[in-house]
Amino acid sequence: MTAPRFTPLMASLPSTVPFVGAEAIERRRGRPFRARIGANESVFGPSPKALEAMAKAGRGAWVYGDPELHDLKSAIAAHHGVRPDNVVVGEGIDDLLGMTVRLFVDPGTPVVTSAGGYPTFDYHVAGFGGRFVRVPYVEDREDLPGLLDATLRESAPLAYFANPDNPMASWWWAKDVEREIARVPEGSLLILDEAYGEFAPAGVLPKVDPDDPRILRFRTFSKAHGLAGLRVAYGIGAPEITNAFDKIRNHFGVGVVAQAGALAALADQDHLVDVVAKVNRSKARLAEIAAENGLVTLPSATNFVAIDCGRDGAFAKAVLEALIERDLFVRKPWTAPMDRCIRVSAGTDADLALFAEALPAALAEAAATV
Amino acid sequence: MTAPRFTPLMASLPSTVPFVGAEAIERRRGRPFRARIGANESVFGPSPKALEAMAKAGRGAWVYGDPELHDLKSAIAAHHGVRPDNVVVGEGIDDLLGMTVRLFVDPGTPVVTSAGGYPTFDYHVAGFGGRFVRVPYVEDREDLPGLLDATLRESAPLAYFANPDNPMASWWWAKDVEREIARVPEGSLLILDEAYGEFAPAGVLPKVDPDDPRILRFRTFSKAHGLAGLRVAYGIGAPEITNAFDKIRNHFGVGVVAQAGALAALADQDHLVDVVAKVNRSKARLAEIAAENGLVTLPSATNFVAIDCGRDGAFAKAVLEALIERDLFVRKPWTAPMDRCIRVSAGTDADLALFAEALPAALAEAAATV
Repeated sequence: MTAPRFTPLMASLPSTVPFVGAEAIERRRGRPFRARIGANESVFGPSPKALEAMAKAGRGAWVYGDPELHDLKSAIAAHHGVRPDNVVVGEGIDDLLGMTVRLFVDPGTPVVTSAGGYPTFDYHVAGFGGRFVRVPYVEDREDLPGLLDATLRESAPLAYFANPDNPMASWWWAKDVEREIARVPEGSLLILDEAYGEFAPAGVLPKVDPDDPRILRFRTFSKAHGLAGLRVAYGIGAPEITNAFDKIRNHFGVGVVAQAGALAALADQDHLVDVVAKVNRSKARLAEIAAENGLVTLPSATNFVAIDCGRDGAFAKAVLEALIERDLFVRKPWTAPMDRCIRVSAGTDADLALFAEALPAALAEAAATV
Repeated sequence: MTAPRFTPLMASLPSTVPFVGAEAIERRRGRPFRARIGANESVFGPSPKALEAMAKAGRGAWVYGDPELHDLKSAIAAHHGVRPDNVVVGEGIDDLLGMTVRLFVDPGTPVVTSAGGYPTFDYHVAGFGGRFVRVPYVEDREDLPGLLDATLRESAPLAYFANPDNPMASWWWAKDVEREIARVPEGSLLILDEAYGEFAPAGVLPKVDPDDPRILRFRTFSKAHGLAGLRVAYGIGAPEITNAFDKIRNHFGVGVVAQAGALAALADQDHLVDVVAKVNRSKARLAEIAAENGLVTLPSATNFVAIDCGRDGAFAKAVLEALIERDLFVRKPWTAPMDRCIRVSAGTDADLALFAEALPAALAEAAATV
């Protein structure tokens, strides 16, 4: 029988998944994880007010959500001191990244990003046939000046930079970001992914003119707001950029429950402050645990830490596998030299006690096998 | 300043929205609707068991949903007597339509659909630059043989057919569908959109070999299951089709709350039976109301009815506007000759009482102005 006639690009794509879910690992292993500290989710959960709003909205879930997202966009705009037409809302940053790539990338279009950066951005660039211009990390940070140099050299219409960074938790200070993004050429767009922005210490998040058509900032409710399972994120940019999403977005994609939850979460900044404090305590404890094992934790401006396992990628992979074998869900970077690290999300005291218990044995096991 | 360099296709697209939301009309008018019977939502709401599951899942909404959707896909497969690899889950049929178009449509690719059919399919086809091959309705039904003829004639890799149909609520019997879809050529895919399938009387839904790579059926939790605001739908097709979505889908797009709600809704078939009974009573009452006003309601296999206003599109538009003016949210088809109708969703007794009260005045007002 004649095969379905996929487009040539689609036929050429692999069926790879950017991330294997914790659930898939649990099913494969036939047992649940005891600690889920691998996906940079917020174990400290969402605001109780968001839960209340979601439960209330659930009873009205027979209704489609407002496709213009009027109330949520207005609240986001007020929160950031911008206008609602500076805001685009999507079903997570992954969704916004996919749409942004679609807006700017045809087969062969150069797209600048970091080698070893956020895999889902790469997934979307590949999905639209973009030509990767990959800039290596320098000293465990995305090479911001290098990203700008590449954007200029290649005249790339689209570039990606995460600050703070995932998977290394590193960052650039606001003044450096501001200096570098001033170099984005007209006619290019730099995605400034601030998924972890709420965790960043003062002085990290840059001031950006919201009407500058060269910069599109992303924020999410999946991390600090503890609503990864709800699927809401937003971009802030010039109306000529944000309005373009209306040409292609799934207009009813952010439903009533998601809109209500996000709105209530945004209003509860006290919860956010509390979460960030808990995350900071958790990161300090992770640093202690690492030190107790003779390891170094890299500085972190996010809700996770990269722990340098002190050897190469093969060793860190063995450590990761030994931790998973002990029912702890963690992840790791896969690109050298960052792949010498494992990546551990902030956890509850119970999560970290399990990690503290498992790490020495995991290190020993890895040392014995690699 | 140099404009952002959108792709030529993106730059060429209009910023049109397939549907204006009820909320946008409410904001424009500065007052809420008294009855929301325009978007074919289920006023009878979701299963209480789905609400319970969603509230429980909400507390765990800090977790991303299983990107493989294992439990939900398994339940859907069991419900339909197919294998999990016959199932693809998406964020509503709109999302699945967009991805399907992306899989098969490059600029210029012929795509067969009905003139006046589901606008969001057209939105996605335009969004990927497809060439429309539009087949007119015949006697208020999609012209199924004509759609097949066009698919064969144009050697189109993709065609769309909704059964039962939106916006006319008409249908083809299973035996006719089965006969016609046997004509889909190898190497073509027919989308069989059964968004309203749960409302169809016995004998409408065809038997389809789930492993036939020429047919992809869609079902949704937005209609009979009363969960439009949750954003979950699914497709049933051959693995070579369903697996292709893994190349492009937003893997974490259906979150934990949505997965939990859909799973519980699917399990509560008693609720579905109850909703369908209520919808049928509501449609009978709508037919009475129409008859009391000298109008005819078209036969319906969905949760809405098309009411023939007896004159042309301009008159029906005036009726629609007069109903909106009376705070009733209804919609209408926009393509002649179906545009002589308004489209009214099944409502509660209170909704229909308001409609019965408003319709005579709306008809009189329309008659006086058109």
